[in-house]
This record gives sequence, C-alpha cells and structure tokens, in this order.
Amino acid sequence: MFSAADSLTHESSLAVTGTVRQDSRAPSGFELDVSDLKVYQEVSKEEPFPITPKEHGIDFLMDQRHLWIRSTRQHAILKIRHEIIKAVRDFFDNDGFTLCDTPILTPAACEGTTTLFEVKYFDEQAFLTQSGQLYNEATAAALGKVYCFGPTFRAEKSKTRRHLTEFWMVEPEVAFATVEDTMDLAERMITFIVQRVLERRSSELKSLERDLTKLEKISTPFPRISYDDAVKILQNNGSEIQWGGDFGGGDETIISQQFEKPVMIHRYPSAIKAFYMEPDPIRPEVALCVDVLAPEGYGEIVGGGQRAASHDLLVERLKEHGLPREVFQWYLDLRKFGSVPHAGFGMGIERAVTWICGLEHVRETIPFPRMLYRLTP
Amino acid sequence: MFSAADSLTHESSLAVTGTVRQDSRAPSGFELDVSDLKVYQEVSKEEPFPITPKEHGIDFLMDQRHLWIRSTRQHAILKIRHEIIKAVRDFFDNDGFTLCDTPILTPAACEGTTTLFEVKYFDEQAFLTQSGQLYNEATAAALGKVYCFGPTFRAEKSKTRRHLTEFWMVEPEVAFATVEDTMDLAERMITFIVQRVLERRSSELKSLERDLTKLEKISTPFPRISYDDAVKILQNNGSEIQWGGDFGGGDETIISQQFEKPVMIHRYPSAIKAFYMEPDPIRPEVALCVDVLAPEGYGEIVGGGQRAASHDLLVERLKEHGLPREVFQWYLDLRKFGSVPHAGFGMGIERAVTWICGLEHVRETIPFPRMLYRLTP
Repeated sequence: MFSAADSLTHESSLAVTGTVRQDSRAPSGFELDVSDLKVYQEVSKEEPFPITPKEHGIDFLMDQRHLWIRSTRQHAILKIRHEIIKAVRDFFDNDGFTLCDTPILTPAACEGTTTLFEVKYFDEQAFLTQSGQLYNEATAAALGKVYCFGPTFRAEKSKTRRHLTEFWMVEPEVAFATVEDTMDLAERMITFIVQRVLERRSSELKSLERDLTKLEKISTPFPRISYDDAVKILQNNGSEIQWGGDFGGGDETIISQQFEKPVMIHRYPSAIKAFYMEPDPIRPEVALCVDVLAPEGYGEIVGGGQRAASHDLLVERLKEHGLPREVFQWYLDLRKFGSVPHAGFGMGIERAVTWICGLEHVRETIPFPRMLYRLTP
Repeated sequence: MFSAADSLTHESSLAVTGTVRQDSRAPSGFELDVSDLKVYQEVSKEEPFPITPKEHGIDFLMDQRHLWIRSTRQHAILKIRHEIIKAVRDFFDNDGFTLCDTPILTPAACEGTTTLFEVKYFDEQAFLTQSGQLYNEATAAALGKVYCFGPTFRAEKSKTRRHLTEFWMVEPEVAFATVEDTMDLAERMITFIVQRVLERRSSELKSLERDLTKLEKISTPFPRISYDDAVKILQNNGSEIQWGGDFGGGDETIISQQFEKPVMIHRYPSAIKAFYMEPDPIRPEVALCVDVLAPEGYGEIVGGGQRAASHDLLVERLKEHGLPREVFQWYLDLRKFGSVPHAGFGMGIERAVTWICGLEHVRETIPFPRMLYRLTP
C-alpha cells in the first residue's frame, strides 16, 4: 500500500479508509489514520495533470476550465455563487413573490436588436432573451409580486472585465410599486445577500483574501443620488461627461469609489434609457429609473425602475425607438386591460459575485463562462 | 363612488380602501366594508377583456396567454410550479449539493445532433443545450455533489401533450455514486417534493380538483423493475414491443398505470441509450441506467444512471455514435485525470408539474410555453 501511494500521480482518484482523529495542527482540524487505500484511476506519467503549481496564463486556464474548477480558489468562488443565488431566491420566496420563469426563446427584443443572438426556430426566426422584464410585467399583473431568474444573453462585442455573453439575472417585478419602492426592495435584497454570505461563507471569503470589513458595512439605507448630482460628482473628478450622456465603465468606477455602500442613482435622462421607462411627472425629460452601483469601483449591478403605465405613451415610444408595434401587441394589451403603476429591477448575478468575492474579472464567477471568442469548453 | 363602480368593466384596475371584517360565508373568510374606491385604468367598453366566462378554444387561450394567466386555474398551477421548484432546490441545498449552472450556449450536442437549435455565435456556430449533464460530470469531479437547474431545449418536431421545445430541468450528479444510489436519490427527491406541495399548496391542488389521495400514496421505496420485466408487462398488456425496442408514450402509460407510485425501470439495452452510459459489468448489453415513470399514466419524468468511467470505452462509443471526438476532448479529460464512478439524473420540471397538478397537457405548466408552431406571446 505504501509503495502504491508512493508512485501516485497528481489528480489520480482514490478511496482512502481509516480512522478520523482530531488534530488542531491540521488545516481542517482532523487527520486520518489510513488503514486502506484503493486507487480508482491513475493519471498517466506520460500525460500528467495539465495544471501545476506554477503560474499559468489566463487563456490556458480558460481552455482547461473543466479541470481548473478543481482548485481551492475556484471552489470558494463557486460556493459563494451558490450561496448568493440561494440567498436571492430565499429573499423573494420569503417576501411573498411568485417565481415565474420567462421564456428564453423570444420573438422580440426588449432593448433594441443590435445585441441579440439569433436562433433558427423551425421555419421562424427567434432571439435569445436579453431580459424577462416584459414578460414579468404580464405575470406581475396576474400575481402581484413576481420574479424570474434565468440565463440572459447579450451579443455584445465588448471584451471587458464586466461582460459575459451569457449571464444569469434575477428580475423582480411588483404591481402597484413606484421607483422609490424598487429602491427599497433593491437595498433590502442586496443587504440580505451580503449578510447571508458573511454568515455562511466567511471561510471561503477569507480564502479569497476578501476584506470582510468592507462587506460588513453594507446595510440599509443606501445613499440615493440623482443623475444630476452624479454628473456633478463626475465633473468634479475630472470626467468630461455632460448632462444627457450615459455613464461609461470608468464613470461608474469613479462614482462607486465615493461611497462605502452601494449607491443608487435615479432619474436618468429618458433619452438614454429603454422605451418602457415611466417619465417623471414633474420633469418628463428624466425617467423614474434607478441603477445601483456596487462600491469599491465595481460599477452597475442593478438596473430598474417604474414602467410606463399608459398605452398611448408606449405606442409613441415604440415608434420613436423604431420597434415593430405588432410584435409588442401583447405587451400593449397589459395597458389596455387593468394597467397599474408597477416597477422592478434586474440584478446580474455574476457582477454581484464579482463584487462580493472581490474579483478582478467576471469570468471566474460562473462554471463555464461564455464571452466573445470563448464558447468552449 | 357607487355610480363609478356600477359602470366598471371586467379587468379594470382599481384600489379599494375599507375595513376588513371576518365573515365565514366569504370564500376567503373575510369581507371588506368599502370606504373608498380609486380607478387606475378602465377597460374600454368597445374593446372588452378578451377572455370571458364562456368556453374558449385552446389556440385562442394560448394566443392570449399574457392575459389567460390571470385566471384562478392558472394561478394555482403557477403557484404549484413555484413550490415544486423551491422544493427541488431546498432538497439539494439541504443535502450538501452545490449548484453549478451549466452553459446554455454549447459547441456540442449531448445526445445526437438532430434535435438541436442552432445559434449564430459571432463567427461561430453554437447550439442550445439539451442537458447540462456532461458539464455536471466536470463539476461533480471538482465538488463531489452538484446540480444544475436551468432551461434546456429540444427541437423535436413532435406535437404531443408531453413535449415543450423549451423546458426546465434539474440535474444532480454525484461522484462515487452508482445507479442504485441514483435511484435512492430520485425517490427521496420526488417524495420530498410531493410532500412539500401537499403541505403548502393543498388549496391550489383542490382548486384544480386534484385527487389528493393519489399523491398521499407517494413514499419511499418506489417499485424497481428491470427493462426485461417491463417488456414482459407490456407484452402481457397487448403491446407489440420486443426486447431491444424503446418505449413509446403509450408503453410508458401502460407501465405507469400498473403502479400507485412512480416506478423505476432500470438496465435498458445499451443500444437504445446515450453514448455515455456505463454498461452493466455482469451483462454488458444493458446499461446501468434508470427511467422513472410517474403514476396514473403520466410517463417518464426522470432519466439517468451511471456514467462510463473508462476513457477507452468512451472513445469507442463516440465513434459508434458518429460524434466528433475533438469536441468531446474536454469530456474525455475527465476520465484521464481522476476518473471515478459517478451517476446522476435529470427531471423535467414541467412533466413533474403536469403529474402533480393532474393536468392533461404540459402546456399550462410554464408561464409562456414554447412548442412547435408556438413562439408567442
């Protein structure tokens, strides 16, 4: 048995039998006095396990993703991802929401058609969903408080540390809710998630060398600033942004570095937001919307707001955005048959995991990331 | 206020203020003494709500799915769906499993290429996943006990009461597990789900006129019969099936009508099963696989088994099935680097909901079903 163990190669599989013994010197607090050892499969000496303790390039590790996930660091990230997803679901389930899965295969784009993946659906053309929101509005009108939670897709040609082409998103939608209600909901949810991860996954956070004191500061209420004020902060910090412009990744980083908690920026110009946003009745040039930026420069993790309740306004907006009315007929029906104020948001799970784990790049937050030029393994 | 209320049309939206009063005669046990009424939006008399108490054809209702989900029956089904999904996740989370989401966009087919939806992925060709299993095998090798739970896709041209083109599937995978372990896991999970729904959603089940006594009989252990015995049952019940043939929907109905509990059929001929099945070492012509058929004629809800652990056997099988080895190279790596016996299964959520709710057709078990010729709304 000793000689069998002696020649075993890295990542060979075995069953070890023995007596468990407490030992404070062991990393786990326990040692095993081995009485038997059975080898299931021995890794060949000619073709050893490709990942070694030396430094590897990221492209190599991504090519070996099916094996890379065996490392301690990847274990920690995947366990925290699991905990975040469970926390999100528990939060909504315990708050009276009904899970309503929305379709992945859709006939229409939610926010424009340039970043859609196209699917051949028998003799028809379909697109992969970018958001379940429009469908959420239908289920919220039926059930009051709903959420969907599934994969969403953006065919963006951007290769940044914040983008995946396939990512998971949770999207709650609430009938009779305003943009302020949505901000309350978002800060409650985010705080709940962070607390849960601190409670249950602090050893994983520590193994990632995450600064826990930063996460311990996350509590309600979060700072709320208007888009107008955000533009002033940016201008005071050297950004060349003018009122009316959208924030880039660099702008988000600047703003989120000003706060120790996630910051909620509300009332962006309607012109730079999606067609379905409800205009502010006091200042119709801005929308009743909100983005939540994670602290420490992590940028946007949540986007949402109040949806336009008026049928005629939506018809006008569809026209302005060049979207085909017939495809949205069912959506317009929601305003013909019992329209009420309603609001909701979407949170990208991988961005939340990136922030909570304190990672540099979103690519390690999902078992098998999909990016521009990355469809395998 | 009385006159405003008098002229209100069906599905108009309103806020009602008043005093809640207990009243055993009311269906909910409570009445409201109204003091104020505010109308949000009044449905036009010229274009009334399209769904009326009269009978509607199924195509009409499916076209109006965004409004049909407002009915009591659809509420009940969607609430039970929610509860089943929550039960599934709680079951695995409480049993030490790690959720590992597997990719939707994949470069390869899991079980042949004829029923795949094709996606243009920038300059490459991708397919929508049919199962997360191959990826689960990688994450199980990393984390021991894992599950994925997401939408899966089959471009099947079959228009039956059991098929959706887009459906949700939960797939656990366990390292160091056998086909017998998988049967234990499946019966524990199914029993847990049914118990949970009976506990928390019995009023919804009753509103669907579900026979609760049938569900109350679901407890471990489930009957386990071999494929050989299943063929005999079928032949004794007038089926023309011969040993070696696969079961059709009608065959599944016959078998599942023989039992009051879900029945587990194991060890099908390898020739009619997927390439990755582990052959029975005692009888290599059959595979260490299992299908679970729901009772009352509902047919297959679970399929799974033990996966081939040998690298060389898998290479041979890929060749026999005409599958391109280079696409599966990462999968073959799992057998080169620490291969262990492992097993798992997949359960289609919509089929489970259909059975537990006692429905005729799978199409009402998801908010927006996708079927052959049905991509909208």
